[in-house]
Amino acid sequence: MESIGIVNRRSFLQSLGGVSAAGLLPGRLLAAAPAQGQRVIIIGAGIAGLVAAHEVEKRGGEVVLLDARDRVGGRAWTLRGGDRVRQIGEEDQQVGFSPGLHFDAGPARIPSHHDQYLGLAREFAVPLDVLENSSRSNYLLDAAQPGESGRLRLRRAANDLRGRLSELLGKALRSGSLDQELDGGTRGRLGAFLKLYGDLADDGRYVGSQRSGLARVPGATTGEGPVAVPPLTLDALLANNELAMILFEENILMQPTMLHPSGGMDQLPVAIAAALRSPPRLNAEVREIRRKGRGVRIVYRDRVTGRDEVVEGDRAIITAPLPILARIPNDFSPAVARAIASVRYAASIKIAFESPPFWEAEQIYGGISFVGGDTALVWYPSGAFQAKRQVLLAAYSSNEAAVRLAQHDRAGQIALARNAVEQLHPGHGRDLTAPVVIDWRKVPYSEGPWIEWTDPGNDPQAATALNAGDGPFLFAGSHLSAYSGHWQEGAILSARRAVARATSTTPSA
Amino acid sequence: MESIGIVNRRSFLQSLGGVSAAGLLPGRLLAAAPAQGQRVIIIGAGIAGLVAAHEVEKRGGEVVLLDARDRVGGRAWTLRGGDRVRQIGEEDQQVGFSPGLHFDAGPARIPSHHDQYLGLAREFAVPLDVLENSSRSNYLLDAAQPGESGRLRLRRAANDLRGRLSELLGKALRSGSLDQELDGGTRGRLGAFLKLYGDLADDGRYVGSQRSGLARVPGATTGEGPVAVPPLTLDALLANNELAMILFEENILMQPTMLHPSGGMDQLPVAIAAALRSPPRLNAEVREIRRKGRGVRIVYRDRVTGRDEVVEGDRAIITAPLPILARIPNDFSPAVARAIASVRYAASIKIAFESPPFWEAEQIYGGISFVGGDTALVWYPSGAFQAKRQVLLAAYSSNEAAVRLAQHDRAGQIALARNAVEQLHPGHGRDLTAPVVIDWRKVPYSEGPWIEWTDPGNDPQAATALNAGDGPFLFAGSHLSAYSGHWQEGAILSARRAVARATSTTPSA
Repeated sequence: MESIGIVNRRSFLQSLGGVSAAGLLPGRLLAAAPAQGQRVIIIGAGIAGLVAAHEVEKRGGEVVLLDARDRVGGRAWTLRGGDRVRQIGEEDQQVGFSPGLHFDAGPARIPSHHDQYLGLAREFAVPLDVLENSSRSNYLLDAAQPGESGRLRLRRAANDLRGRLSELLGKALRSGSLDQELDGGTRGRLGAFLKLYGDLADDGRYVGSQRSGLARVPGATTGEGPVAVPPLTLDALLANNELAMILFEENILMQPTMLHPSGGMDQLPVAIAAALRSPPRLNAEVREIRRKGRGVRIVYRDRVTGRDEVVEGDRAIITAPLPILARIPNDFSPAVARAIASVRYAASIKIAFESPPFWEAEQIYGGISFVGGDTALVWYPSGAFQAKRQVLLAAYSSNEAAVRLAQHDRAGQIALARNAVEQLHPGHGRDLTAPVVIDWRKVPYSEGPWIEWTDPGNDPQAATALNAGDGPFLFAGSHLSAYSGHWQEGAILSARRAVARATSTTPSA
Repeated sequence: MESIGIVNRRSFLQSLGGVSAAGLLPGRLLAAAPAQGQRVIIIGAGIAGLVAAHEVEKRGGEVVLLDARDRVGGRAWTLRGGDRVRQIGEEDQQVGFSPGLHFDAGPARIPSHHDQYLGLAREFAVPLDVLENSSRSNYLLDAAQPGESGRLRLRRAANDLRGRLSELLGKALRSGSLDQELDGGTRGRLGAFLKLYGDLADDGRYVGSQRSGLARVPGATTGEGPVAVPPLTLDALLANNELAMILFEENILMQPTMLHPSGGMDQLPVAIAAALRSPPRLNAEVREIRRKGRGVRIVYRDRVTGRDEVVEGDRAIITAPLPILARIPNDFSPAVARAIASVRYAASIKIAFESPPFWEAEQIYGGISFVGGDTALVWYPSGAFQAKRQVLLAAYSSNEAAVRLAQHDRAGQIALARNAVEQLHPGHGRDLTAPVVIDWRKVPYSEGPWIEWTDPGNDPQAATALNAGDGPFLFAGSHLSAYSGHWQEGAILSARRAVARATSTTPSA
């Protein structure tokens, strides 16, 4: 099988019209026993828990699915006007968006090669749209640089750079300095190709290109042809601190075509939950995770009634985030408990506003402008183009930048985000209304967006320990996959693995 | 004002929420007299004619808008199941698509900087979606090359090439051969940047990149990380005949974000027509274009009743395609008549099928695969992702390639298109059903897609002659703009220019 494309037979098969994974997975997993008569307690109704529940039920098992929140989806959280946003240690916010608007506070885009996710979207008939992740009209903003090199359109950065590099490489070829590297035939073909690649003049110089933008658009008569913007120098390009972000869209996880559910990221969790035989128990805050005989005994507090409830089962699949899990009294082995307690989650903050779409007057429809600093970027909405009110993500700050941003109070963070928009789009900072700030470290029951295994103190061996399981306890979630909590695809892979282990005839170690 | 962005004050203003052009256009056009009491006969209800009608009515004039077809929109033609497609000299076709599917037989995408078009879409509240014009999962197919260099994913072509070129340029820098071109500071900054740009190894070599694709996707546990595909050699890349098509998406007219009306390209024409005070007269085939006094007298045959009708007015704005116009008896000046008769239109053929979306199993959602030869490309649908039946454009052949394709009979053309899909997606040629062939030279009342001014015998002075007008006769249409008939933006610019001239107080020459 080819590289993405069809890199992984399992993922290929699963993307064929939502055929159940159980019917298709090769080898060991196909030998997994059906779960008839098994009762599995699943902690957490995010994507991992929901998929685990769905898989257990498909195999004939019984599920008790618990989530502390009043909704399913976990980090796949879509905000709408009127929603309440709690932040630990701070005042609640109420989302002020107009009716019909929605905003994905957690994950917001799906790569085309995330076959697990897309197979589920197909299976549950969740409509998908393009999530325009990169538009050539977007900006790279370096406020320290003057004029057009500081507020640099992506098209100009990418194409003036390509022109300059092609010009230089052509010169190097002609100078003979690459004669050792490339034979004459290759040099000839490459030289010819570079003219196209860099849109070079006949003499090999780069004198600008319409790819970089137009100083004059084509007009009403044939004489009024387009005129390219003048080319920027290599020095001017290299001086822009955000220049490397032209490669953002080439990251394998960020390439077009990216997708998202048309109605919001929560639409897939909602659809999976609706199809379960045993509906999830919401507002169920787990208080104890115990062994009982060869099985499990889970105590949870019903946050609505205030009463403790007990459920028992043969196995538990635990998808709760590790900071939360570390505080729940349990019967885990010392090694597993240590692994859970050892991991520190990263930081990430999103700040969104409602706004009239002033960016469309600058030919921006979706995509991301990069601004650096502690707010990092501005992400324009995809979908509902030309609607009079839309949601703008004015800051999406992660890791060290998020830690710095969090040192400001909420009003200060909002001001910084508004100012970033003002620098990108002078005069329009004042158009932004109804701010909402989501600091993922302050989200109850999450207390973090994902794990960066390279952060000091974190050791991926912790995930290995959890993935080995602990008697009747199995662990799952994107944080335990090779996606480290960043992508829902990892949650689905991990959940399916956990269910296969939970229902296999050989007892887990 | 910046380059696209806001390159043209007029287009900037017009894109601000659909404010009427008459209220905003600077200078001479603002001085245009309102059209109170004027009666303008407009020939052709494509985009140009519709916009002209709308503009005349806004100025208080009266319009008679004629179109020979039984629909508005001209080349902005959207096919749906049950529609009849006539082709001059051939059997009719009936479109066999399932309900709910549509296909744009003419223009199918709008650049984000086409402010005239997008302003109208906003004014008439026509919903727009992203038209995914380029996806990294798409292919560059060169059947003469073996294996993965012949059926080459765009992501691999673009990124392996970038890696190889960055590696070579880095070597050239280090060899001193560019010391005359670049000072030491620039060389240092560039060398560092090239490592990011090309995703090079620490020693400056290109050893492959995840940007080019994954041989193994990330798995269910932290140990199962992604593995990049091995890098292709520069020679293998240069050998692929379609390699230059990686630059397709950098053409200023093809860059993301591209858009299209969600319901089909005909939705804007339909909306404009619906808002006219005087509804268009359809099935009105113009038979004579005459002067009468200082005004005009148009004879048309009502194709439904078979009767000739006559309309008179102060001016005519003529948007009919030139091959059609050349055959209508008229009172044009000899110079104008010669200009009209002198132009030969280009050729273009689209071949579409209905199909289950087998391409989604290869992670393709929209975008274009390039296959060369006489069918040129396969264009995957944007929108209705994961729907069980979608419309695939299996050939879009233009100019010399279309002339060659047209030499086959219809069945032969369909077979070639099916075969191109089979080469791209082995085993799936048989999935294609309900073929429809649109050869634009055979479309009644069009007889061609656009004008290539560089074609032998064509002279853009013909457009200049028409743009000068001819007494009470004014000419408009995309073919007379700097867009040469390729883009609806040109039609709108041309129409607005013609209306300004038609309603100005100074009589046209």
